[in-house]
Amino acid sequence: MAGKEARSQAFGAHLPPVLIRQSVEAALIEDLGRAGDITSNATIPPQAKAKAVLATRQDGILCGMPLAAEAFWQIDPEIEFKIEADEGDHISAGDVVAKLSGDARAVLAAERVALNYLMRLSGIATYTARYQAEIAHTEARVTCTRKTIPGHRAFDKYAVKCGGGSNHRFGLDDAILIKDNHIAVAGGVKLALQRAREWAGHLVKVEIEVDTLDQFREALSGNPDVILLDNMTTDQLSEAVAINRADNAGRVVLEASGNVDLDTIRAIAETGVDYISTSKITMAASTLDLALDIAISD
Amino acid sequence: MAGKEARSQAFGAHLPPVLIRQSVEAALIEDLGRAGDITSNATIPPQAKAKAVLATRQDGILCGMPLAAEAFWQIDPEIEFKIEADEGDHISAGDVVAKLSGDARAVLAAERVALNYLMRLSGIATYTARYQAEIAHTEARVTCTRKTIPGHRAFDKYAVKCGGGSNHRFGLDDAILIKDNHIAVAGGVKLALQRAREWAGHLVKVEIEVDTLDQFREALSGNPDVILLDNMTTDQLSEAVAINRADNAGRVVLEASGNVDLDTIRAIAETGVDYISTSKITMAASTLDLALDIAISD
Amino acid sequence: MAGKEARSQAFGAHLPPVLIRQSVEAALIEDLGRAGDITSNATIPPQAKAKAVLATRQDGILCGMPLAAEAFWQIDPEIEFKIEADEGDHISAGDVVAKLSGDARAVLAAERVALNYLMRLSGIATYTARYQAEIAHTEARVTCTRKTIPGHRAFDKYAVKCGGGSNHRFGLDDAILIKDNHIAVAGGVKLALQRAREWAGHLVKVEIEVDTLDQFREALSGNPDVILLDNMTTDQLSEAVAINRADNAGRVVLEASGNVDLDTIRAIAETGVDYISTSKITMAASTLDLALDIAISD
Amino acid sequence: MAGKEARSQAFGAHLPPVLIRQSVEAALIEDLGRAGDITSNATIPPQAKAKAVLATRQDGILCGMPLAAEAFWQIDPEIEFKIEADEGDHISAGDVVAKLSGDARAVLAAERVALNYLMRLSGIATYTARYQAEIAHTEARVTCTRKTIPGHRAFDKYAVKCGGGSNHRFGLDDAILIKDNHIAVAGGVKLALQRAREWAGHLVKVEIEVDTLDQFREALSGNPDVILLDNMTTDQLSEAVAINRADNAGRVVLEASGNVDLDTIRAIAETGVDYISTSKITMAASTLDLALDIAISD
Amino acid sequence: MAGKEARSQAFGAHLPPVLIRQSVEAALIEDLGRAGDITSNATIPPQAKAKAVLATRQDGILCGMPLAAEAFWQIDPEIEFKIEADEGDHISAGDVVAKLSGDARAVLAAERVALNYLMRLSGIATYTARYQAEIAHTEARVTCTRKTIPGHRAFDKYAVKCGGGSNHRFGLDDAILIKDNHIAVAGGVKLALQRAREWAGHLVKVEIEVDTLDQFREALSGNPDVILLDNMTTDQLSEAVAINRADNAGRVVLEASGNVDLDTIRAIAETGVDYISTSKITMAASTLDLALDIAISD
Amino acid sequence: MAGKEARSQAFGAHLPPVLIRQSVEAALIEDLGRAGDITSNATIPPQAKAKAVLATRQDGILCGMPLAAEAFWQIDPEIEFKIEADEGDHISAGDVVAKLSGDARAVLAAERVALNYLMRLSGIATYTARYQAEIAHTEARVTCTRKTIPGHRAFDKYAVKCGGGSNHRFGLDDAILIKDNHIAVAGGVKLALQRAREWAGHLVKVEIEVDTLDQFREALSGNPDVILLDNMTTDQLSEAVAINRADNAGRVVLEASGNVDLDTIRAIAETGVDYISTSKITMAASTLDLALDIAISD
Repeated sequence: MAGKEARSQAFGAHLPPVLIRQSVEAALIEDLGRAGDITSNATIPPQAKAKAVLATRQDGILCGMPLAAEAFWQIDPEIEFKIEADEGDHISAGDVVAKLSGDARAVLAAERVALNYLMRLSGIATYTARYQAEIAHTEARVTCTRKTIPGHRAFDKYAVKCGGGSNHRFGLDDAILIKDNHIAVAGGVKLALQRAREWAGHLVKVEIEVDTLDQFREALSGNPDVILLDNMTTDQLSEAVAINRADNAGRVVLEASGNVDLDTIRAIAETGVDYISTSKITMAASTLDLALDIAISD
Repeated sequence: MAGKEARSQAFGAHLPPVLIRQSVEAALIEDLGRAGDITSNATIPPQAKAKAVLATRQDGILCGMPLAAEAFWQIDPEIEFKIEADEGDHISAGDVVAKLSGDARAVLAAERVALNYLMRLSGIATYTARYQAEIAHTEARVTCTRKTIPGHRAFDKYAVKCGGGSNHRFGLDDAILIKDNHIAVAGGVKLALQRAREWAGHLVKVEIEVDTLDQFREALSGNPDVILLDNMTTDQLSEAVAINRADNAGRVVLEASGNVDLDTIRAIAETGVDYISTSKITMAASTLDLALDIAISD
Repeated sequence: MAGKEARSQAFGAHLPPVLIRQSVEAALIEDLGRAGDITSNATIPPQAKAKAVLATRQDGILCGMPLAAEAFWQIDPEIEFKIEADEGDHISAGDVVAKLSGDARAVLAAERVALNYLMRLSGIATYTARYQAEIAHTEARVTCTRKTIPGHRAFDKYAVKCGGGSNHRFGLDDAILIKDNHIAVAGGVKLALQRAREWAGHLVKVEIEVDTLDQFREALSGNPDVILLDNMTTDQLSEAVAINRADNAGRVVLEASGNVDLDTIRAIAETGVDYISTSKITMAASTLDLALDIAISD
Repeated sequence: MAGKEARSQAFGAHLPPVLIRQSVEAALIEDLGRAGDITSNATIPPQAKAKAVLATRQDGILCGMPLAAEAFWQIDPEIEFKIEADEGDHISAGDVVAKLSGDARAVLAAERVALNYLMRLSGIATYTARYQAEIAHTEARVTCTRKTIPGHRAFDKYAVKCGGGSNHRFGLDDAILIKDNHIAVAGGVKLALQRAREWAGHLVKVEIEVDTLDQFREALSGNPDVILLDNMTTDQLSEAVAINRADNAGRVVLEASGNVDLDTIRAIAETGVDYISTSKITMAASTLDLALDIAISD
Repeated sequence: MAGKEARSQAFGAHLPPVLIRQSVEAALIEDLGRAGDITSNATIPPQAKAKAVLATRQDGILCGMPLAAEAFWQIDPEIEFKIEADEGDHISAGDVVAKLSGDARAVLAAERVALNYLMRLSGIATYTARYQAEIAHTEARVTCTRKTIPGHRAFDKYAVKCGGGSNHRFGLDDAILIKDNHIAVAGGVKLALQRAREWAGHLVKVEIEVDTLDQFREALSGNPDVILLDNMTTDQLSEAVAINRADNAGRVVLEASGNVDLDTIRAIAETGVDYISTSKITMAASTLDLALDIAISD
Repeated sequence: MAGKEARSQAFGAHLPPVLIRQSVEAALIEDLGRAGDITSNATIPPQAKAKAVLATRQDGILCGMPLAAEAFWQIDPEIEFKIEADEGDHISAGDVVAKLSGDARAVLAAERVALNYLMRLSGIATYTARYQAEIAHTEARVTCTRKTIPGHRAFDKYAVKCGGGSNHRFGLDDAILIKDNHIAVAGGVKLALQRAREWAGHLVKVEIEVDTLDQFREALSGNPDVILLDNMTTDQLSEAVAINRADNAGRVVLEASGNVDLDTIRAIAETGVDYISTSKITMAASTLDLALDIAISD
């Protein structure tokens, strides 16, 4: 795949290609520094060619190929990059996900940056998929938070989606989430919700966080789009679900958070909540091990 | 601490303040988006003031305060930010690491970005310290690799150092690391080392990776600065250490890599190698849980 | 007001200060070019001081002071800038909105950039207020679109809000708006809505555009958050409002668009729709005439 | 037209292609945000193709195609973009100005940014042409000022030129324009002109603003390149023209400003002045209505 | 001088402070890299303070202090920076031009960047002054060209001005300079001048390059603002000056170029030409030797 | 050579292509400004084509072609650019180094930026080669310093290498260089070296500057990688070389600095030092005269 196809593919993957371009350029500058790949410059002749196979060494979910492709393209648009697997695919140790060929020094210069994106994003996707698999028998979806690596919000959230998770808001600006401080200053749940509705445009959802059932009932009467049930027991969560169904035809979306991990998420999902949010899928995910096997001919 | 002190402190922490400025600006734009913190804008009056305490909820090593301070400073240089702990300090659950006061909306707007840096970098520092603690009875040091989050190389490596680890090269340009492909194309270990020496300036170190003792002996005779012993057994590592001492007065630095984890690092260190490199400390570290407790008065 | 207060004030005005910094820096570079203000450099001695009064020459709504203040601050942080009116204030011809003093050359160098922001944004705010005034006797709100000047989305939308209007989505990414093409490809209104719900996170609203009452009824049954009634007659709009109340307890928000101007908006609002969107408030607004009266002493 | 031709065409249109690249990249990031076009991602399959026709809904002057082409190119360099009309062409409602085909999601993602540039710049060009048409029977040319949208100076001025207007200076740095404050501080018209001549290089023109005939005569004797006659009556303007011809062989260029609109410009031009400057053509121009008609096949 | 004064001073020096900020930030990132000043971090304790004296080791013209001040300010706004000499001052070996005090590591980290600007710009100013001194008995001025270091145009031209030279155009966009290719394609000198006048705004000067007296006479009749006499003998130059005076009241500005150096410029100036342009003052100037003498106390 | 090949070639030349892209973009924006090449726009029709020959007018070493190629490519990717000489080649006055063809305006618009890079970098390479030629009969290599033009470190050092010189460290971060201040604060040569070794990673070299033979002996015993002998006489240098050989098997690399010029370098090299560093090769090099001969057909 030449550079143009890589960019097309990036778009198909739902990531804005302009974000990809800027992020990868910064990453390459960071790795190549002021002198470039001095090892290859010293040891590999300019005319050498490389053939390489990009493969996974672990089972998981593939994510990040448009960023990897862009890394090679920015170093040398002549590198051929043939993608062999789709974003979100389940991949098994040994699977080839792409084949490359081109200038040997160029392939080596882009290798680490490409892999760093792939390993990080596939790691998030894979870890998300494990959470989602635990609750596949329910209607609940695991969802991320704003706890992401600075500068990687778009990519981290994209990886969550590739892993089968759902996305919470992307920033402070695209949805309202009222927390305890806002409630206190606004003068209570009702007033906070009212001010939110007045301020926000009609394309903005309003969520409110509660940590007791009393607060929950008060919030429910204020008619938010979503209620976040924080740090509740599964009994409390079940009761909240029941109240919502009884009083409100289940119209308010319920999200649970707090103490979510691979051991607890199943029970939380079985209470009937709609979404379960956790920072673990973005902040505690190990990377997935992918590598580039390269053969060089000069 | 006002903004100026934050910048001074950033410098004291060995991180280039210009890198901090650019990274934090990008992170704030990412989180505030086009409309800013719409929740606080809707519910908190402009004149409201906040007092806040930044504390850790887990034991660990503190890292990232200059970045956190910069986040508050860029949003509102009037926010007072008083640091109560030093970079690299051991902190225990409940410890206060900083106190803040200022415009309530501004404090809330910078909170997440500040915490995301702190949680990530303290997580790396803490995890590094656990590795280093395992080998504290030896002369060996744990060291990082180029497997870092794109755009965060400087910060990730800084966190490794805060955690007591040592830093490998920062990019492709600041040291030579000859691997199998380079050796093959160059026509062998000796030729590869010779080309590296000719190419590199006299302020550049040359390392070569080997995976057998035969290769090690050949490499040793080429007089590199460092030899990377990849995926060797502890017996092989011990023998390499012995050969280096016997033939070479221990003059070449030995680094081990491969299969390094908290269970294996002790035995590897006890072979007498100088450095043990692993991507785990940057790529498999969970975040450390820190939070901001805020009280708002209007 | 010194620079720090200007930044604080910018935040109070709900605009991300980091966006302001970047936009104003680019605008100053654009106006000062490579040689700076050569007229003042030639004719005004370095020690000259200026006092200036920023006043409006037309009645309107004030908007953009944080950007204006930043322009002076970036040129010379020693300039005193005292704000005399709040964002969103009704101002009358002759009203003073700020007083400045400082280095004469610096004041002159920042003048045009500061005024260009103020004139443009106050123009949008003023024009928006005229639209909103026409429908003040109804519950309807005028709202903007994504037809804004490239690079000014955040500021244009902020000005709409200062003028009493409401904001539609800020970009392609913060809400779903299904149009005819999406419906056609998805295989109908229901399928399009269903795919949108499945794709979007629970913090994302879904709007669908219809242009007949049949389509409207179909859309209503799919339970979107908002329905956009495009280019309908006021009779059709009234009927849509009635249907929504009868069948759906008025739960879906109704937005009208098409042929909206100062002559037509009153009748549209009186049909009972909730929002009326028009690009005119951002794309057809004249600037408001503000000027800086400067006295220089050397 | 593929991306390379778009860039060539941009250059042919006299706009620096590097400015276009940077502006369009920022505009796309602004519109696509962190999550991209979520509506199309939800409803349009990746393999869908679009054919589209870019047409005007109003009569006017076309301007901005290189920016529009760049928007599509940056999203997906595979989109074919065939230009059917030249910059500066008179176009009539219904005229097709370009035809596109390519990936459906990509076409939809770039649509709004492309149109926002075209609508704004064609609006300026069209409005400028109306001013110039009023004075076509004279030698006078309408010219713009530095009152332009921040960040759009190059594009706004380019649109004025496409509309048949002439360009005043592009920034504070490329010509000298002496105003009342400069005269006062310099100690009079003569001294101000003398200082300007001494300071400025020989490739820099010097203009001076006067508002009385006495000042005009004084300015004339100082031999500036251009005199700006601000807020004068048509009688005063006529007299200034006569004086210039009599005393100076008409050698100084005369520019009129103040109270210029479509009703007054004809009489001003008939006084014999060379240029008539007004901010209206950049700051009071409505956008021209252009749209993209898209057919999608999957 | 604290940072605010440094910025004020930068403005006083006629350089756009926003250009200074961006250039210095890039230079610091370039020198500090990803790990910062590792030597000082290793050997100097955080609490150490430095006092330093910035002095010249050679006679020359001082230029670049606003850039030097900004370098220290960006690293640590707490550093005191007291300027002891003005831009453009003649300085003698040993003269102190500034005194600094502050955090020792910060002073050392900014030192090289500050000096690199000062040495380069003072070198240009000094070399320009030597050229100008050769022709001080005439009316002629030495002037620069567009042969400058990429990214340093504004600074290189500013240094020429500090050295007593005059500035030619700053880019391709701020004046017209018609050369042989333009003349050939346009169909001759007259047609080229006519097209230039029609295209350019009234604030743009038009210069034409000729290399024979016949071309000169033809150009003169086309009434350009400036004629560039390229590679002519001093006899030809003298004749051109005479023709201009006789036929044209000396109204066209005459510029000479070609074979200009310290040995030839005197004779060229004595022909009566107004300006003598040469790339030597920007491209062949050695740096002026300045250094920082630092005393550190911990 | 089309753009893709230019980028490949840039990589072959060992310069990070991402640095080239950013630097050239900034340089083009600097030269084209807001209005572009107004001379060519005025006089050259859009359909005109150019053929051009890039040739040198002086003997020297060629350096900078990847930057020159990028300039043309960014303006118009359709320009054909055929390289006829390799980086580092000895070229003689009259030699053609590249041939171009394409849109005439585009070729003219990129000409100056392309030449400015080539002239500067070939000038450094040529001057470096003269220094190296003086010492070709020895083992010594001339090496550069951190005295480079801000923003051009990577390019200036690359040019030194093209000229046959060797590179010292690229920034404060990639090697340790202990100077007098560091020694004083650390408490002596031994302590400074010890702290450096403890702080720095194992891939970082440690150099220490001395200016007496006593200091040299002390430094030698601390086992640094490199010792910088500053401002020593050739007798002192010879003695230092002898001591190193006698006491240390010549294991420490010796670098000389101070009073290095074309007259002195030979004698310095003959003392047996390994490297001779001087800022002259980057800061006192004149540009090499290259030019573009263009023929335009319309």
